Amino acid sequence: MKIAIAQLNYHIGNFETNMHKILSAIRNAADEGAEMIVFAELAIGGYPSQDFLEFDDFIDKCENAIRQIAANCNDIACIVGTPTRNLLPKGKPLFNTAAFCYKNEVQYFKKALLPNYDVFDEYRYFEPSKSFETLTFKGKKIALTICEDIWDVGNNRLYTINPMEELIKEKPDLMINIAASPFYYDQAKKRFEILRANVLQYKLPLIYVNQVGAQTELLFDGGSMAFNANGCVAESLPFFKEEVRIVDTDKLFGYCAQDHQQIPEKIVLIHDGLVMGIRDYFSKMGFSKAIVGLSGGIDSAVTLALAAEALGPDNLYGLLMPSQFSSDHSITDALELAANLGVSTSTIAIKELFDQFALQLNPLFHDKAFDVAEENIQARIRGVLLMAVSNKFGYILLNTSNKSEAAVGYGTLYGDMNGGLSVLGDVYKTEVFELANFINRNKVLIPINTITKPPSAELRPNQKDSDSLPDYEILDQILYQYIELRKGPDELVSAGFEENIVKKVLRLVNMNEYKRKQTPPILRISPKAFGMGRRMPIVAKYLS
Amino acid sequence: MKIAIAQLNYHIGNFETNMHKILSAIRNAADEGAEMIVFAELAIGGYPSQDFLEFDDFIDKCENAIRQIAANCNDIACIVGTPTRNLLPKGKPLFNTAAFCYKNEVQYFKKALLPNYDVFDEYRYFEPSKSFETLTFKGKKIALTICEDIWDVGNNRLYTINPMEELIKEKPDLMINIAASPFYYDQAKKRFEILRANVLQYKLPLIYVNQVGAQTELLFDGGSMAFNANGCVAESLPFFKEEVRIVDTDKLFGYCAQDHQQIPEKIVLIHDGLVMGIRDYFSKMGFSKAIVGLSGGIDSAVTLALAAEALGPDNLYGLLMPSQFSSDHSITDALELAANLGVSTSTIAIKELFDQFALQLNPLFHDKAFDVAEENIQARIRGVLLMAVSNKFGYILLNTSNKSEAAVGYGTLYGDMNGGLSVLGDVYKTEVFELANFINRNKVLIPINTITKPPSAELRPNQKDSDSLPDYEILDQILYQYIELRKGPDELVSAGFEENIVKKVLRLVNMNEYKRKQTPPILRISPKAFGMGRRMPIVAKYLS
Repeated sequence: MKIAIAQLNYHIGNFETNMHKILSAIRNAADEGAEMIVFAELAIGGYPSQDFLEFDDFIDKCENAIRQIAANCNDIACIVGTPTRNLLPKGKPLFNTAAFCYKNEVQYFKKALLPNYDVFDEYRYFEPSKSFETLTFKGKKIALTICEDIWDVGNNRLYTINPMEELIKEKPDLMINIAASPFYYDQAKKRFEILRANVLQYKLPLIYVNQVGAQTELLFDGGSMAFNANGCVAESLPFFKEEVRIVDTDKLFGYCAQDHQQIPEKIVLIHDGLVMGIRDYFSKMGFSKAIVGLSGGIDSAVTLALAAEALGPDNLYGLLMPSQFSSDHSITDALELAANLGVSTSTIAIKELFDQFALQLNPLFHDKAFDVAEENIQARIRGVLLMAVSNKFGYILLNTSNKSEAAVGYGTLYGDMNGGLSVLGDVYKTEVFELANFINRNKVLIPINTITKPPSAELRPNQKDSDSLPDYEILDQILYQYIELRKGPDELVSAGFEENIVKKVLRLVNMNEYKRKQTPPILRISPKAFGMGRRMPIVAKYLS
Repeated sequence: MKIAIAQLNYHIGNFETNMHKILSAIRNAADEGAEMIVFAELAIGGYPSQDFLEFDDFIDKCENAIRQIAANCNDIACIVGTPTRNLLPKGKPLFNTAAFCYKNEVQYFKKALLPNYDVFDEYRYFEPSKSFETLTFKGKKIALTICEDIWDVGNNRLYTINPMEELIKEKPDLMINIAASPFYYDQAKKRFEILRANVLQYKLPLIYVNQVGAQTELLFDGGSMAFNANGCVAESLPFFKEEVRIVDTDKLFGYCAQDHQQIPEKIVLIHDGLVMGIRDYFSKMGFSKAIVGLSGGIDSAVTLALAAEALGPDNLYGLLMPSQFSSDHSITDALELAANLGVSTSTIAIKELFDQFALQLNPLFHDKAFDVAEENIQARIRGVLLMAVSNKFGYILLNTSNKSEAAVGYGTLYGDMNGGLSVLGDVYKTEVFELANFINRNKVLIPINTITKPPSAELRPNQKDSDSLPDYEILDQILYQYIELRKGPDELVSAGFEENIVKKVLRLVNMNEYKRKQTPPILRISPKAFGMGRRMPIVAKYLS
C-alpha cells in the first residue's frame, strides 16, 4: 500500500491555514498515486491547543474540518489527529483521536495512554480509551495508535494498560503511529529506540508521523519514519522541515537502508531547533523584525547570530547601551559582531538617563551607598530603551538570558529579563559557549574576544560573574543534576559537589522562582526547561 | 467520639514550621480530651507542592514527618494528608493519601478521584486508588475520603467510579473528608451543597476538614464543618482563619443548629480572601513592607486599602509619579487616600525623565509622532522608579492591574504590569467599584472622587478608558461569558451582545496572551482566573 507521510507544521487555532495545507497535501498525494495519507496527532486545531479545547466553538470548528476532509477523501484515505467529543455520560468531555476518513465516512480511533507529566496535560482534557480495535483498509489490518500509546515498552512504569498488547491479538499487518512529540536534544534517540522496540516486539512494519514546527516554547522536530518488520529504517524524513513522502509498505524490505536513523549531533539539533523556534514564533505571531540589546557578551552575540539565521540580518536591529561601567571591548566586540552578521545598530549611552534617575530619586535615597538598586536601574533603563524602539518601529525584543542565569536569578526583572521570546533560556552557559563555537564553525561570526573574555554583567566597577557565582562548569553540573535529574542536596553532596556550594545554588534556584514566573516564553531544548513543563510554587520554603 | 477539626494554614515545603504547628495541635487536642484529630489534605509538605513532589528528597521529608507524628499519637489518633510512594511496579509514583496514625502505627487511605482541571494537576503526580476500605477506630467504622472523592454526587460527569458507593457497602458509622479546596467566591456555596448531598444520600454524619491560608495565587478559605446524619450543620468553622475545634460525634444531633452554613456575602468573601492573600504572600515570602504606585485612580486606591488591612499602614509606602498628562485630581485624590489610610507617600514628577528619554531616543525617533511608544515610556519610567525604591528599601511592589485590563491587554509590560503580586488581577473593574464601596462601608477611606471620576490611564491628553474600550458594564459581561463560562462568539451574539464588540473583545483577549504570560501571580477569587488555572497558547490564531 502506498502511504503518504505528511510531516507538516500546523498553527494552533488557525483552521484556515491548517486546512489549506492539509487539503493541498491530500490532493497532491492522491495525484501521485498514494492510497492513504497520514497526518500527525491533533493536526486539526494544532497542538497544544491547551484550554481552547474547553470551548464548544473550538471543537465545532474541529468537527467541521473533519467533515471537510472526509468530503475530499474519495480516491485516497486519510488519517488525521483531532479532538472529538466523548458522547458517553461519564468521563472527560473529549477523546484524543485519529480520524480515518474515506468516501465521506469517518471512523475514530482513540488514544489510551495520556501523558500528564512535564509539558503534557492530556488528562486535563481527554478521557483515556479503554477499547481497542484495528482499522481495516483494502484488506489490510492496521494497528493505529497515537503517540504515547506505544511508549509502554521496556521499563516505562507510568501505565497499567498497553494498547499494542490488545491490538496485536487481532493480528494486524502494519502499525501506524501519529504523534505530536516535543523535541529536546535527546528525544530523537529515545524515540527511535521506543519505535524500534515496538517493531521488534510485534514484528510488524511501522509508519511513524510526527509534527514539525514550533508552538511558542515547544519545538517539534519531525523525524518521521517508516520501519520494515525487521526493525530496519526504510524511510526517514528530515528534522525541523516539512515534507510529504510516499512510502510503499509492500516494498519496505526492498529498499530498507539501515538499522538506525541518522540523527544530527546534539549541538546541531539545539542550533536548528532554536533557529526554527525563532522563525516560527515570528511567522505565527505575524511579526518579521527583531531587536536585540548588544552588550558585547556571548549571550547577546549567540542570540543575534541565531536570529540572523532565522529572520535574516535585514530584519534585525542591534542596540548598544554602554554605561560608565562598560569596558571598551563591550562596544568594539558588539560592533564587530553586528558587522560580521550584517546587522544595523545604534548606540545610546545610558549615563545621562542614569544620572537623571539618581537626581530624581535623591530626595528618597539621600546619600545611601550604590547597591543592587542602582545596578538594576541601569538594566531597566536599557529595558525601557529597547521596548521604546520595539514599540516605535515594530521590532520584537529577543531576550538573551541563558538557563544558568535564569536558574540562579542572575538578571533584572523588567530589565535584561524583558523580551517577547527567550532564545537561550533553556541553554546552560557552558552550552552557549558550545553554540558560539558551532556558529563560528566555518567563519568567525562571533568575535573571538566575546568567547574568551570572562563573563560580566558590567553593572558595577570590574564586576565578574565569578564574583558571586561558582564557575559555570561547576554551576551548570549542579543545576543539571537538580533541575533535569531532580537530585536532592544529599545526592549532590554524595556525587562529590561541595556542600556549601550545593546549598547556595539550590537556595538561589528556589528563591528566584518569582522571577521566572514573569519571564518570556523559553524555547525548550532540554528534557526539563523553565516554563510549562516545570511547575514550582513561589510561596515555598524548601531548600531555600 | 471526640474529634478535633484542625483547620490550619500550612507553608509549602516548610516542614519545620508545619510540623511544629501540627504537633502542637495534636498535643493540645489530646490535653482537651479529643480521641482523634483530623488535619487537611496534603497538610504534610503543603498544597500545592507542585513539582517538588518529583524530588525523592521531598518525599523522604514527608515520610519522616509521618513517622514523627505517629510517634506522638499514643493517647490520640491522627488523620493527616500526605503524599506517599506507590510501591506497585506500575502506575504513577505517588498516591495522595490520608495517613491514620495511632500508637506508632500508620495506615494509608488513598484518593481515587484526582482533579485535573482548572488549577488542579493531580494526575501529574498521583495514581488513583482503585481499592476502598473503611477505617476502624474504637469500634466505629469510618469512611475516610479525600476532597474530590465525594464530589461525584449529582450531575458531575468527570468520573467513572464513586468511592462512597464502594465504602457504603461496609456500613460505616461516620464519614470524614479531608480537603485542600481552593477558594473562589461561589465555592463555599457549591461545596456546602456537595457535602450535604453526600450526608443526605448516605445518611451518615460527616466531618469535613479544609485548609486555610494562601499559597501564592491560590486562597484556601477553611469553612470546615460537622454535619449530623440528617444534613444539619452542627459545627461550622470560620472562613479565612485558623482554628482547632473539638466536636463530639455522639452529640451531633443534640447541638445541631441549622440546615445551612453561614456563608458571608460575595463581596465580603472577595475582600477577606484578598486581604488574606496579601498577608500570607508577605509572611510566607519573609517580607513585611509593600509599595504601591498611586495614580489617584480606583485600582491603586483599592489595592492600597486592602494592603493596609493586610500589612498595616506603617508597612506601606505610596509613590505618586505625575506626568504632564496627569490631572490635578490625580495628586489630590491620591494624597487624600494616603492620609485617610495613614500611609506615607513621596512624589516624583516624571517629566524630566521622560524628556531625557525623548532626548536620548531622538537620533532614532527623529520627529515621529507621539504614539504608544511614548505612552509606554511613561508607564515604564514609573515602573523603574517603583522598583528602585523597592530594591533600595525592601518594599515589595504590589501590582494594581484589574482583570478587565489584564484581559484586553490594557496595560504596559515592564511598566504598570510590574509587581511581586497582583491583588486585583482576578477582579473585574465593575467588581473593583463594588470593593471600593465595601471598603468605604463605615467611613470614607477611598475618596469619593476616585470612585466617581471616569477611569483614565492619563498617558496622553484627555485620555479616557472609554475612548478605546466598551463601557466596563458591557466589557465585563462579555469577558465573564468568554473567560469564566467559555462561551464562543456565536453564543455571545445570540445572548444579545453586539457582534463587532464581541469580535473586538475576544480578539483583544486572545492576542494579549503574551502579556499575561509575564504578569505577577494573581490572587484567585473567581472560578477562572488568569494564572495556573487558565492555560492558553501564545502562538495561536483563534478568534484573533
